Amino acid sequence: MAKVSSASAEHIIGRLERFKVEIPSWGFSQTGTRFGKFLQDAAAVDMDDKLADAGQVNKYTGMTPTVAVHVLWDFPNGYDRQVVKIAEKYGVKIGAINPNVFQDQCYKYGSITNRDAKIRKRATGHIIDSIEIGKKTGSEYVSLWFADGANYPGQADIRQRKAWATKSLQDAHKTLGRNQIMLLEYKPFEPATYFTDFCDWGASYIFAKNAGKNAKVLVDLGHHLLGQNIEQIVAWLIDEKMLGGFHFNDRKYADDDLTTASIDPYQVFRIFNEIVNEEWLTGKDIKLAWMVDQSHNIKPKIQAQIQTVMAIQELFAKALLVDRKALAAAQAAEDVIGAETVLRDAFTADVSGILKAVRKNLGVPANPLKAFRDSGYEEKAAKTRIQKRKDLGINEGGAFA
Amino acid sequence: MAKVSSASAEHIIGRLERFKVEIPSWGFSQTGTRFGKFLQDAAAVDMDDKLADAGQVNKYTGMTPTVAVHVLWDFPNGYDRQVVKIAEKYGVKIGAINPNVFQDQCYKYGSITNRDAKIRKRATGHIIDSIEIGKKTGSEYVSLWFADGANYPGQADIRQRKAWATKSLQDAHKTLGRNQIMLLEYKPFEPATYFTDFCDWGASYIFAKNAGKNAKVLVDLGHHLLGQNIEQIVAWLIDEKMLGGFHFNDRKYADDDLTTASIDPYQVFRIFNEIVNEEWLTGKDIKLAWMVDQSHNIKPKIQAQIQTVMAIQELFAKALLVDRKALAAAQAAEDVIGAETVLRDAFTADVSGILKAVRKNLGVPANPLKAFRDSGYEEKAAKTRIQKRKDLGINEGGAFA
Amino acid sequence: MAKVSSASAEHIIGRLERFKVEIPSWGFSQTGTRFGKFLQDAAAVDMDDKLADAGQVNKYTGMTPTVAVHVLWDFPNGYDRQVVKIAEKYGVKIGAINPNVFQDQCYKYGSITNRDAKIRKRATGHIIDSIEIGKKTGSEYVSLWFADGANYPGQADIRQRKAWATKSLQDAHKTLGRNQIMLLEYKPFEPATYFTDFCDWGASYIFAKNAGKNAKVLVDLGHHLLGQNIEQIVAWLIDEKMLGGFHFNDRKYADDDLTTASIDPYQVFRIFNEIVNEEWLTGKDIKLAWMVDQSHNIKPKIQAQIQTVMAIQELFAKALLVDRKALAAAQAAEDVIGAETVLRDAFTADVSGILKAVRKNLGVPANPLKAFRDSGYEEKAAKTRIQKRKDLGINEGGAFA
Amino acid sequence: MAKVSSASAEHIIGRLERFKVEIPSWGFSQTGTRFGKFLQDAAAVDMDDKLADAGQVNKYTGMTPTVAVHVLWDFPNGYDRQVVKIAEKYGVKIGAINPNVFQDQCYKYGSITNRDAKIRKRATGHIIDSIEIGKKTGSEYVSLWFADGANYPGQADIRQRKAWATKSLQDAHKTLGRNQIMLLEYKPFEPATYFTDFCDWGASYIFAKNAGKNAKVLVDLGHHLLGQNIEQIVAWLIDEKMLGGFHFNDRKYADDDLTTASIDPYQVFRIFNEIVNEEWLTGKDIKLAWMVDQSHNIKPKIQAQIQTVMAIQELFAKALLVDRKALAAAQAAEDVIGAETVLRDAFTADVSGILKAVRKNLGVPANPLKAFRDSGYEEKAAKTRIQKRKDLGINEGGAFA
Repeated sequence: MAKVSSASAEHIIGRLERFKVEIPSWGFSQTGTRFGKFLQDAAAVDMDDKLADAGQVNKYTGMTPTVAVHVLWDFPNGYDRQVVKIAEKYGVKIGAINPNVFQDQCYKYGSITNRDAKIRKRATGHIIDSIEIGKKTGSEYVSLWFADGANYPGQADIRQRKAWATKSLQDAHKTLGRNQIMLLEYKPFEPATYFTDFCDWGASYIFAKNAGKNAKVLVDLGHHLLGQNIEQIVAWLIDEKMLGGFHFNDRKYADDDLTTASIDPYQVFRIFNEIVNEEWLTGKDIKLAWMVDQSHNIKPKIQAQIQTVMAIQELFAKALLVDRKALAAAQAAEDVIGAETVLRDAFTADVSGILKAVRKNLGVPANPLKAFRDSGYEEKAAKTRIQKRKDLGINEGGAFA
Repeated sequence: MAKVSSASAEHIIGRLERFKVEIPSWGFSQTGTRFGKFLQDAAAVDMDDKLADAGQVNKYTGMTPTVAVHVLWDFPNGYDRQVVKIAEKYGVKIGAINPNVFQDQCYKYGSITNRDAKIRKRATGHIIDSIEIGKKTGSEYVSLWFADGANYPGQADIRQRKAWATKSLQDAHKTLGRNQIMLLEYKPFEPATYFTDFCDWGASYIFAKNAGKNAKVLVDLGHHLLGQNIEQIVAWLIDEKMLGGFHFNDRKYADDDLTTASIDPYQVFRIFNEIVNEEWLTGKDIKLAWMVDQSHNIKPKIQAQIQTVMAIQELFAKALLVDRKALAAAQAAEDVIGAETVLRDAFTADVSGILKAVRKNLGVPANPLKAFRDSGYEEKAAKTRIQKRKDLGINEGGAFA
Repeated sequence: MAKVSSASAEHIIGRLERFKVEIPSWGFSQTGTRFGKFLQDAAAVDMDDKLADAGQVNKYTGMTPTVAVHVLWDFPNGYDRQVVKIAEKYGVKIGAINPNVFQDQCYKYGSITNRDAKIRKRATGHIIDSIEIGKKTGSEYVSLWFADGANYPGQADIRQRKAWATKSLQDAHKTLGRNQIMLLEYKPFEPATYFTDFCDWGASYIFAKNAGKNAKVLVDLGHHLLGQNIEQIVAWLIDEKMLGGFHFNDRKYADDDLTTASIDPYQVFRIFNEIVNEEWLTGKDIKLAWMVDQSHNIKPKIQAQIQTVMAIQELFAKALLVDRKALAAAQAAEDVIGAETVLRDAFTADVSGILKAVRKNLGVPANPLKAFRDSGYEEKAAKTRIQKRKDLGINEGGAFA
Repeated sequence: MAKVSSASAEHIIGRLERFKVEIPSWGFSQTGTRFGKFLQDAAAVDMDDKLADAGQVNKYTGMTPTVAVHVLWDFPNGYDRQVVKIAEKYGVKIGAINPNVFQDQCYKYGSITNRDAKIRKRATGHIIDSIEIGKKTGSEYVSLWFADGANYPGQADIRQRKAWATKSLQDAHKTLGRNQIMLLEYKPFEPATYFTDFCDWGASYIFAKNAGKNAKVLVDLGHHLLGQNIEQIVAWLIDEKMLGGFHFNDRKYADDDLTTASIDPYQVFRIFNEIVNEEWLTGKDIKLAWMVDQSHNIKPKIQAQIQTVMAIQELFAKALLVDRKALAAAQAAEDVIGAETVLRDAFTADVSGILKAVRKNLGVPANPLKAFRDSGYEEKAAKTRIQKRKDLGINEGGAFA
């Protein structure tokens, strides 16, 4: 390890061993764009498949002990002990609970911002049900994303909707268990086009403040206007004690759900630098929901999750390497180039040795991606699942004939 | 009419009577975002419905005598005389032919840019088939949009793909009928995220130049990076004699397919100003494919098309009102405010009198949207089509129960 | 007047008579881009010229009774009774006080975010001095914009700077007079490039909340990332009782300082629609700082200000025309097209009659821009000021020889 | 060196020894934003200083044997043999010649696009004079950037201007020496705001094609709309044999002139990957103008240039490491993750050993930046130049007192 860090190698390796990231159950299913889905034979057909696949990611990386779930898709009939057991079987646990209040026809004009009180009640009820599921699964986070917004000027009353959403969030917040945290995501575009009710970190911050003390802001890396400095938002939210967690992914233009750091790895490093700074200041691990939110249309799904988790680990390792004393000293001297060089030295440092040590301690292969690719799991899953679809009469769309 | 124009009212009214816009058959079907579809009872179930609905738009506006078709959806088995007859029944004709080389599973890694020669051949063949259909329907335009591109750095060889696409387009161009025009659309994002092969007007320009003399560039208003000056692209393409036509719609951030001019009407006016300038210079109507490309998730579909066509008509009327002599004089004097005022006077002019006259001459209602809304067509279509779906066993997704 | 409004013509005309906008003293001086200044002979040479020119805008529009000042440029030696008297002579008053903490060499690494406590003190002291000037001039607003930020990753500690700025603002806020309001502007880019300390409305909101109850957020129309829905920010800030005012201008890509509504008039209309909605709800005029912030490199300066003020007036008139009952009814029916049509009818309405009446009541010409252009003032000013520069030995740069 | 490359270490080291980048004379002078300049004591006062500083960059990096010049600032009276001699004294040569047709008052409404034929002639004449200077200095490149455009809709006739510019470029092209190349830069914004005549690569491509066979397109990394895939433009221009060279810098939002790769190093790597691909295909070094275009307001100027040149060298080294056979194989297998991994392995590879070898061969310090910082040159230059300004009576603005 290059001597770029003020932390000891032991500290860094230890921190990386404790560093865990949650992956999403929906990352293993068929998915696509509005123009269609490109089907993968090895895609998960049912919840058993999803959890099995998630178990693979954890097996090869040692970093993903929990799996985020979408209530509508994964617990369609409410809490289901069977799902928890399946997770156990595959060596993972149920993580963040994601209500779905965007898919039903009734949500055409909004969920908790809908002008129809019955629909708002239904949406709020689904969130409260999700909180209850979370209590039973022992999940700490209930993670809320709202597709709500409007497509056209005039369509909706921005302020009325703000009031309605505030009330719903307060009602839901009241039902949180003592250790449960409500995460409020934001996004400035899509699927609503003219405005989205949870448009940016400022909006989610105010919604969270009004909802209650266990409500925090969730930062999805793909949910910003171009040109936004995301690490600044992260720094501010940490400073305000309002950062709840992340949805990791990357993007080029819109909310592209690409593998994390595939487009701009330095940005991810800079975000992690703010996290590590907080840990340096407090002397303890930050408490956050570290979650991947990606579902892949082109890349093989398990591989893409492994690749993502490895990229996150690598960049967190680099952020841990930042020599914080040297950085502080350069900043104190207004040595702009010196301070920047401290960051760049950490970013370009070779962390392969550190990662090797970490993976050894975690008992996983030195190259998780290669090991998984060599394992034959994907090919086998493809075979089994083709048959399963046939047996269950599931037709997800035609293959190239 | 305010005296803002150097053209006579007769000229303007006459031009507006000749001003026609094509609407898309796919604008009447169920559609949605990648997060789901919000179903409309009155949405078209089959081609008969689509053409009937298109006929309504024409009936009430007098401006949409032709309907663009998607070959895969509208001519799934190749040319079908029946479809032409149905169109006739509803008072419209088949317009631009749109091949679909993005939906089949084989196009996962590209169509005419696919490294597999068989797939490129298949895509090219489909385009050539579409050209043949166009000959039979008497359609002038074959309108090509490619979803081709890559999602990740390294995934694809940009230059190889450029060569493959060039060859395919040349092969297809050779089969064009004498009066057929090949339109090449461009788009910098979605569904490919890292790069798109037809990324901008410069790329489509070069592809078109290489394809052959009947290939032109198609400008879709929603297919630009933010900040782009679209009227400049239009002016340049006119100047290069390479502008083939438009796909009208509007957007706030991405390719939102909103009704034209719903977000930025002044931009549409400025684009039309370049068109009218060309007509002023040449003394004749410009020859272009004027096409709407919108499919509506939230708005009732027929209404949205009528609204769009009316907005286009209104803004074209305003562009016709620009006092070109006064504009030229102000420009010659470097009177920036004066020149701008000429545009603004036309943009803010009350064109209701002109539109009233035009609609009277076209034999359509003074307020097409209101007349259609009052007609009861939508309610009746909803009823019939609910039954049709039931009869045919079509389940497009559940309603709010 | 078309019957588009639920308000009476009397109400609208009355409201427009009371509708005043502040113009900036710096809008009359030579200005430019980082590539150079294009000099105008008629540009103001000194404070007398600036106030004389501002007086012209007020004389011809009847809408600009106050003039915003930059302390460093306009009150270089602190409060100066002479300046107030000059203003009176030209029929205007001193409006918002703008400290300048970005120009001195000491602010290279920040003003109230500078790590050097002496520099922070100096910046805070200048703000407090500006507040004192405001008390003496009777100005209600102290308007703060900070160029603070960093150009490179690593350069600065985002959170330290946040703390420093918070403390300075609190110190300054304590010295506010009872009726004084501190406005906090935000801007995501320029001149700092990597991050700006006051980056967006969320940041300014939190700074304002922490500063004290008389601190509010200032929205400059050119200070947003592309794709931002500004009317939503305005609606939220009104709802939070945190909107302090506006800096009006327009932009295509960056902070271009173009005349308001020259690029996107419909957006300005939609912003005003949120204002008028608030006035409708409360039954009284909103209390805001309505300020123009433009300085023109290409357009003649007085003309550009008159054109701007007229554009603002026209679009506010149109917003007043929105039929709020019809809008509410369409929204209540989820009639998206109907609601949008209410807005569009107001936006496209011919307000020339209304403006004529308003201007008559205000005792100003029916066409202020034309009247000013015909007045000969500019030509005369040019002549006088060429001589003044010669007399004073001022060389602002060479003309074309 | 990790075994990531299909090229030998010798090849890579050899290529890097031949890899040279040009730095700009204007990068050593005082500079700023439109809000003001932050002065540096060590900034160059005159041409001797500029070339001395450029010599330092070359001395410490061994990579910058040539210096781009701005005719108006560096050859104000036409060709000057003295300047060439000074350059020699400092071990550098005069590189690309940059005419300046944006600073004079006469260019307010355009240079080669100005409607006044006299002004177009003057601008064209200055370009031709610059070409003549280039012949005498032995410079290969004449590098053209035009600030031309318009700030407001209606202000200018886009197509007329296109014709005027085309004619001027043709006239200038005729005077090119046999080995001279005319580079045409593009930029979509600033200082013109509404449109720029050379708005994007498509426009510069067409202008270059029309100008003549020695006209090529220049890609400035900071001159694109957000979201643009720059490596694709580079690949296309190489493929069209129309890429003339680069202006290196980086940006967050606008044309920020930040040190290259300071914001997005992976993007620079991907651009270089396209260059290396071309060299791989042809088996020889590409022929391009590799130029830095940065002028620093905050960073010490010589250090910033050294840092930039080192970043470019490092990222070019990484691009040389790309295992092109493995990349081609992964692409051929449509192994998206595999192909991406090839790129990432090269990007994250430790190239310190390679750079050490290269620098040893070039006879420069292993860490050029550190060596320069330790040399005392900057402190000495500051002292000398403070005195020089005093002696010459140059007042560039006040320091913090």
